[in-house]
Amino acid sequence: MSNRITFDFANMFTSRVGEHGLDQNVVLQAAAKLPAVDQALRDKRSAMAWRDLPYQPAAVLDKIKAAGSYLRENFDTLVILGIGGSALGSKALLSACAGPYYRLMEKRPGACRVLVEDNVDPDRMNSLLETVDLKRTAFHVISKSGNTVETMSQFIIVLELLHRHLGADFQKHLFITTDKSTGILKKLSDANGWDTFTVPDGVGGRFSVFCPVGLLTAAAAGMDIDALLAGCAEMDKACSLPNIPDNPAYLYALLYTMAMAKGVNISVVMPYVDALAPTAEWYCQLWAESLGKRSDLQGRQVYAGQTPVRALGVTDQHSQIQLYTEGPFDKIISFLGVEQFASKLTIPEAPLPLPELAYLYGHSLNELIEAERRATVYAVTKAGKMNNSIILDKLDEFSFGSLLYFFEVATAAAGELLGIDAFDQPGVEEGKKATFALMGRAGYEEKAAELNAAAASSDWICRV
Amino acid sequence: MSNRITFDFANMFTSRVGEHGLDQNVVLQAAAKLPAVDQALRDKRSAMAWRDLPYQPAAVLDKIKAAGSYLRENFDTLVILGIGGSALGSKALLSACAGPYYRLMEKRPGACRVLVEDNVDPDRMNSLLETVDLKRTAFHVISKSGNTVETMSQFIIVLELLHRHLGADFQKHLFITTDKSTGILKKLSDANGWDTFTVPDGVGGRFSVFCPVGLLTAAAAGMDIDALLAGCAEMDKACSLPNIPDNPAYLYALLYTMAMAKGVNISVVMPYVDALAPTAEWYCQLWAESLGKRSDLQGRQVYAGQTPVRALGVTDQHSQIQLYTEGPFDKIISFLGVEQFASKLTIPEAPLPLPELAYLYGHSLNELIEAERRATVYAVTKAGKMNNSIILDKLDEFSFGSLLYFFEVATAAAGELLGIDAFDQPGVEEGKKATFALMGRAGYEEKAAELNAAAASSDWICRV
Repeated sequence: MSNRITFDFANMFTSRVGEHGLDQNVVLQAAAKLPAVDQALRDKRSAMAWRDLPYQPAAVLDKIKAAGSYLRENFDTLVILGIGGSALGSKALLSACAGPYYRLMEKRPGACRVLVEDNVDPDRMNSLLETVDLKRTAFHVISKSGNTVETMSQFIIVLELLHRHLGADFQKHLFITTDKSTGILKKLSDANGWDTFTVPDGVGGRFSVFCPVGLLTAAAAGMDIDALLAGCAEMDKACSLPNIPDNPAYLYALLYTMAMAKGVNISVVMPYVDALAPTAEWYCQLWAESLGKRSDLQGRQVYAGQTPVRALGVTDQHSQIQLYTEGPFDKIISFLGVEQFASKLTIPEAPLPLPELAYLYGHSLNELIEAERRATVYAVTKAGKMNNSIILDKLDEFSFGSLLYFFEVATAAAGELLGIDAFDQPGVEEGKKATFALMGRAGYEEKAAELNAAAASSDWICRV
Repeated sequence: MSNRITFDFANMFTSRVGEHGLDQNVVLQAAAKLPAVDQALRDKRSAMAWRDLPYQPAAVLDKIKAAGSYLRENFDTLVILGIGGSALGSKALLSACAGPYYRLMEKRPGACRVLVEDNVDPDRMNSLLETVDLKRTAFHVISKSGNTVETMSQFIIVLELLHRHLGADFQKHLFITTDKSTGILKKLSDANGWDTFTVPDGVGGRFSVFCPVGLLTAAAAGMDIDALLAGCAEMDKACSLPNIPDNPAYLYALLYTMAMAKGVNISVVMPYVDALAPTAEWYCQLWAESLGKRSDLQGRQVYAGQTPVRALGVTDQHSQIQLYTEGPFDKIISFLGVEQFASKLTIPEAPLPLPELAYLYGHSLNELIEAERRATVYAVTKAGKMNNSIILDKLDEFSFGSLLYFFEVATAAAGELLGIDAFDQPGVEEGKKATFALMGRAGYEEKAAELNAAAASSDWICRV
């Protein structure tokens, strides 16, 4: 083990947080379920292809790296057209490993600026198209099914724009990641002789960051893909161990599902490092969409799920901590931290007399943000609220890969413990059908009639 | 009434969502409590000075507007040093009213780019300081107490930097908003003969967006401050009406607190317009910090509070909607929308054959995002989940002011219905003291000893 990440679950227990914590003996008894979980995950491994992404073939990686070089040499900007799992991993990657916050929107020599356009807000999309220089901009279109209405609407707009402004050259600006053999994007690509990248079978959107969906972003931004996957592989070793606490994913899954059984229905992820804020959003999709399920594997109505919430330290100490300390015992807070930031910023002696603040002189923001994290852990623990800490020694491709891979395995294990299917998302179909109906797609006429007949008047409407 | 905002609460009721909704008759009975709430808010109005910000003196506004003109004429960039309530209102304002997403980071003629530096992450702060041109950058330092450790740390860093690089001119780059008579910032300003802006008494951080804390941002970015406050005033009229549903704030407060009493402990705000995403964050502070309280006004331990969650439509349909439709009946979803975006973006006919997508040709992203909002309302309602919709005719200073003022009054009314103090935040003190202790501030030696003595070893730690 490389000792890059420390998981501290001590504050989940009654011994630290009192009556609203978990009892150590009960947890140790419940751990008897883990061998069966472990076996189930091994049995399913062939259907969980995301688990093997740390070990994908050199040919696949070489193709991604070559595309990255080509992008960095020929374009300023790569725009991702994708949504949900096609976007969140890239956003997390960019923030964590592509350089500091204020630089992400700037053009940099030797690396593409990568913009993730993951909504269909017309004002936002118009401003994107006004901002970029089409000649120096490539687009990465991501949809496994080729059927995603948001991504395909954006794709048509961009396709027409490139075609109109660049003529036959437009094809050089398009990079497509989709299914290996089926769907609208694959069919179009084959008809035009375009090469595509593949989302492997058994890799769902929210588990796709380490396939070309996320790796092309990493390559275009100049990240170290090998280190990223080495970090995943290192975590895969730990997450293949049979026992807790050696296997942090099984421990996380066990503690969280036991808390859920006690009615703890909120999971907060609170990084104390700006660069991990989008990683908390990525977690929110993973945890919500995987575990939020009406039916268990036996078909019983269980309405499972824990609502993920992302916060940011120290910022949200001035927004959410009042609630977290004094409010209901309905949440677990997971603090993420780093021991070493990339840079240091020291608080100097003020050039004007400020005696009340002299205690800060010579300390650094690095010390301050760590002190605040420790102080907040202390305060929520004292308030009797379950919490845990996941601390990276520093944030780079290796530790980032490890962290995300940990969350993926923990989510899969939690699905097993809850007895639900963590890999489907049947609940989004109703809304998709209703959207097709409202957009006039053939075959959805009955649904359109139902929607338009839905009562609109009510006594509970107010206009101001 | 100007009919700029429509509040539709119909989907909160059993008649639309079934057994997990609220019963109309029970709500109508509970409405008998509202006259007492109304009276209590009127009695407290002198201590709720934020309620009168729509009507603040012309002299105060003229001073803000003059500072805005000076900033726009002399600087490219205004950096806000503030956190929590000193930052979230400005972030909401900038996103809603200062132009489209991708332009906010750019320098624009005739308006300052306003950057909100609301964390003490050293990498982020270093990259900010590397990015801005000090000669063309002003700083707005905001802390009512002058005691906020994060803001004061940033202030010392910036003060020393300006002093070192600009000599005596450094003072022209500083704008300070603080208490009218006390605190470190006021004392320093008086000693140096600097003019300051005032956070009025009775205006807490989370209710401060319409005082100089937010208005200087509006002025620097070239927004229409008068329209903003006119929108507040219009909403104040509606929120002074005695009856529901005429008074949308009382109705919101009544329905949400009744749902809380049934165990609904999560409040989701989901705008279907990118420009309102930071407004959802602003709401999260308002709702969490105001209502998350251990004790009620009689001193009983109630552990009140509802956890706010911000989502973004349509993006989070591909992240959270699976959970919202199929998961537990533990949340209310409030959809925010606009009828008219600032611009239009039509999906053209594709220049290559894409017959499966022809149904989209000629439609606009404007139609798509509205169809998806309607489709999602339909899907979550069909799944039996309580929801409501707040629709602006279009997003501008007037409707934005109305919307935020509505949420402020709704929060105050909810505090009354819960019998708690919505205007304090005692739960953040423990963490503040612990931070002072860890940073070596005099007078906190005992707390430091307690923190350092806290058990660090545990069987529940895992290193990978």
